[in-house]
Amino acid sequence: MQKIVRVDMSTKTIKNETKDEYKMLGGRALTSRITYDEVEPNCEPLGIKNKVIIAPGLLSGTILSSASRISIGGKSPLTNGIKEANCGGVSGTKITKCGIKAIIIEGKSCDNNCYVLKINKDGISLIEQNNLKYLGTYETTAKLREMYGDNVGILCVGPAGERGLRAAAVASNDPFGELKFAARGGMGAVMGSKGLKAIVVDDEGTGPIDFYNKDEFMRIAKDFNKQLAVDPRSKNNQKFGTAGIVKAVNALGALPTKNFRFGSWEFAEELSGEKLYETVMKRGGRGKTGIPCMNGCVIRCSNVYPDENGECIVSTLQYENIALLGSNLGFDNLDSVARLNREINDLGLDAIETGCALGVALEEGLGQFGDEASCMALLNEIRKNTVLGRVIGNGALITGKVLGSCRIPVAKGQGFPGYDPRALKGNGVTYAMSPMGADHTAGNCFGARNQVNPLGTEEQGQLSKGLQIKITTLDCLGFCIFARGPLFSNPSLLSGMVNALWGSDFNENTIWDMGINTVKIERKFNIEAGISPAQDKLPEYVYYEKLPPMNSVFDLSEEEMKRAIID
Amino acid sequence: MQKIVRVDMSTKTIKNETKDEYKMLGGRALTSRITYDEVEPNCEPLGIKNKVIIAPGLLSGTILSSASRISIGGKSPLTNGIKEANCGGVSGTKITKCGIKAIIIEGKSCDNNCYVLKINKDGISLIEQNNLKYLGTYETTAKLREMYGDNVGILCVGPAGERGLRAAAVASNDPFGELKFAARGGMGAVMGSKGLKAIVVDDEGTGPIDFYNKDEFMRIAKDFNKQLAVDPRSKNNQKFGTAGIVKAVNALGALPTKNFRFGSWEFAEELSGEKLYETVMKRGGRGKTGIPCMNGCVIRCSNVYPDENGECIVSTLQYENIALLGSNLGFDNLDSVARLNREINDLGLDAIETGCALGVALEEGLGQFGDEASCMALLNEIRKNTVLGRVIGNGALITGKVLGSCRIPVAKGQGFPGYDPRALKGNGVTYAMSPMGADHTAGNCFGARNQVNPLGTEEQGQLSKGLQIKITTLDCLGFCIFARGPLFSNPSLLSGMVNALWGSDFNENTIWDMGINTVKIERKFNIEAGISPAQDKLPEYVYYEKLPPMNSVFDLSEEEMKRAIID
Repeated sequence: MQKIVRVDMSTKTIKNETKDEYKMLGGRALTSRITYDEVEPNCEPLGIKNKVIIAPGLLSGTILSSASRISIGGKSPLTNGIKEANCGGVSGTKITKCGIKAIIIEGKSCDNNCYVLKINKDGISLIEQNNLKYLGTYETTAKLREMYGDNVGILCVGPAGERGLRAAAVASNDPFGELKFAARGGMGAVMGSKGLKAIVVDDEGTGPIDFYNKDEFMRIAKDFNKQLAVDPRSKNNQKFGTAGIVKAVNALGALPTKNFRFGSWEFAEELSGEKLYETVMKRGGRGKTGIPCMNGCVIRCSNVYPDENGECIVSTLQYENIALLGSNLGFDNLDSVARLNREINDLGLDAIETGCALGVALEEGLGQFGDEASCMALLNEIRKNTVLGRVIGNGALITGKVLGSCRIPVAKGQGFPGYDPRALKGNGVTYAMSPMGADHTAGNCFGARNQVNPLGTEEQGQLSKGLQIKITTLDCLGFCIFARGPLFSNPSLLSGMVNALWGSDFNENTIWDMGINTVKIERKFNIEAGISPAQDKLPEYVYYEKLPPMNSVFDLSEEEMKRAIID
Repeated sequence: MQKIVRVDMSTKTIKNETKDEYKMLGGRALTSRITYDEVEPNCEPLGIKNKVIIAPGLLSGTILSSASRISIGGKSPLTNGIKEANCGGVSGTKITKCGIKAIIIEGKSCDNNCYVLKINKDGISLIEQNNLKYLGTYETTAKLREMYGDNVGILCVGPAGERGLRAAAVASNDPFGELKFAARGGMGAVMGSKGLKAIVVDDEGTGPIDFYNKDEFMRIAKDFNKQLAVDPRSKNNQKFGTAGIVKAVNALGALPTKNFRFGSWEFAEELSGEKLYETVMKRGGRGKTGIPCMNGCVIRCSNVYPDENGECIVSTLQYENIALLGSNLGFDNLDSVARLNREINDLGLDAIETGCALGVALEEGLGQFGDEASCMALLNEIRKNTVLGRVIGNGALITGKVLGSCRIPVAKGQGFPGYDPRALKGNGVTYAMSPMGADHTAGNCFGARNQVNPLGTEEQGQLSKGLQIKITTLDCLGFCIFARGPLFSNPSLLSGMVNALWGSDFNENTIWDMGINTVKIERKFNIEAGISPAQDKLPEYVYYEKLPPMNSVFDLSEEEMKRAIID
């Protein structure tokens, strides 16, 4: 049976446990369940009582495409509620290969040392490694690969996480040593607050995982991988990456522009996936598109965005970051966005939250929109750990409160992703009603824009609810949301694979219970954490400030909003 | 019938209204009721939908001692819940004399001008007075007295309020032109956010107020005034002011010391009321004790604290400010406290909240405890409106969050007053359970320390509840809490006076319904504002960090806490 690894940072002790009732839980289902079972809902998120739970999805460790994401959960210092953030990279598979179902990081180191949790086939140990202290995520990852080999999986925090900044993310290396981020909700700050700088996983010498019915699993998995590979959306993602939607979001009037003042941007074309692809092709060198962020992924939406000399600026440049660091900060070119993105990654921050915070800061006069130097100067304040840097690094809400803004684009304390809720109202429902706060990955209605009018006041609650359930289910299994095409149209693929791997008896209907049960438990946690239904709302200005060019406000009825509740 | 004055700062229009159902409501009962009736609980406290309600108590305008306080209420930007702060000064009486029951400030001025609301017997008008912009409260008051006469009542905000800093207070001039503050909860920020700098009330030429039975009223009032004058507590207050309790709180081990790290302070003697009295006597000049802050008050607990040349440093120097700016910041002398207090007053900040914020800032390394220069430098940042200044000026919670503190002495977002809840547990109950957040005036158990063991785990809930009800009733009537001696031992004084003035039929039992009904409505507002019972708590560290010298933690059961709920 896969084990639960419990790491007590107060005492530096490690225990292995097993728990029957967690058998059929993985990814977000497991991080949320352990958080619910073990974390006092009312606790201080950066205090001794919170925990960081790390869990691969239930389908991790197989040949499946796009199913090796790693979930990182606990109580969020941004929302004060439960949070799960997941990302790609190689750690998910490797943790599973090491026979580990979840890692629980608890307590808090009292010495001032920097710790690395090392996992391999022989065991698990905590290593004092002060040479990593306050290093950026890139250098941290490079140093750890140097020490432990290029093939290890690494989850680490940057200086932002070590310093407890609420916008801090957890970085995860991909097959090429580039970084992905479990970014939302400040889980990097929680990990950093424990005194844990990194987790290094080496799966060398581990055996194959157990299957209930391997032949059956392989049959379905291969079928699914093939379906996914030929899905036109996958093809599009390979070429343009997630940036492929820039123009469509702009056309919808939902592209965050200059601190969510406008919904479209005259330079959107310059920030588009098409432009990205063209630039990568033209500049060559290390530039590349169509890169997988997890081994075996057939979608391959990642890219390496190169500078004029073909050197890598950042990998990967994706839609949310382009929206929040690009149009939202008034930039008309991808080079600036890429450079800001690189710096934010290195600090170990969530680019969405930081983009929102910078947008508020620029609007309040701490710099000029479209001026890379002023944005870099603000990020440098974070690097230097000044008070101003700590303000920005603590996210959009604190930045806005400190600076006196009445236009803070957050829900439940967390910054808006790249879809203004006034022009894509379904996402406004998700931001307000999901236990995750303003997180598009909790139920993104953009893909349904042709089914439900994004500006309409009806069907939005139901739309968000349905997506929340389905997406959460994928989060439990370790799937990337871009794998949803074949999975949503044929859910028996999902239940079939889970049953073949685990010997369970899900069907195409009951498989979604994973999502339903998970959101239910999350909602329960939040209520016990003091997040009452009165907090299921958006910031006041979106209810009265019209968003050009659609001149729409967020105007859904309370009844419509409540249709999205999963309880 | 007394009128309700409605001032819409968006349109700069003023309307007079009357409302029968408000007849028997005054002070906090009225500010909370109007807030409940008119303010959307879920609104943004510094946004257009919040309101500032200003109301004298129900017994205002009479010859009664200590009953002319003015209540200022609305939704607090610190607690996100309902708030009322009251203070002395001359405005309460003058507003009543002008036939006004309450002033409602609503909307928000969109121009960048500075407005003064002028009230006299002939009417009410809004005057653009940009020469006052960002002036300190002392200069603002001086300029307004120069313009409108020494006898006007003035309620004004300083630069902190104009800039929307959440620790901002409303200043109120006393009979000698010195300032008192309706300090807690950030109502100054709400007033400032409307674009209103000051209210000037001139009662010259107004007639006497109406009595239902004047003879009866005068009989009871004179009796009460006499009882209060001979009360030994009043005598003590005359001599030592509220600072008279410094040594007793220190002996209890509840004196906030160095950011609530310790409960006693080796230099407490140097900060005591006795030392204050001795210094005032020795230095002479403008120094004085035994000054009334409201006309006709027989307690006269105010003082003028002079420098070595006999010039006024600040008036008045009182217990809470000595605790929060003195021992809590590590000072061993009253001169430093007085100078800091003066500066905080002039900025228009709450000295308690600012003391808490400074304590956190010093602990996090932004200065040294006991170093006046570093504290003054931080206050100067507020004056200059820098980002650091805005952090501190937004109160202890934001300061602590930005600086990464895990020891933030707040409940419901508001800084602790001068009694560590670990050594005076009844006050911990009040901080956690009162709709007002950490506010000692909502139910201070210090006076009952000989009846209920301050360190005990029983009877605290009931004690806090009883005091909350009684004190709230005094808040509704306009009474100072130092008048409580004769009133609590003989409540028929209260009901008798109210009945004689208003023709009502309260008795010594039903009079407390004023308090009960008010807290009930406040609690209801808070719940609708999203403050769930899970937020009825103290910061995590007080539950496990032992407070020297008693080495006590806050350890009341949930059941005990719930005994303080008034619903």
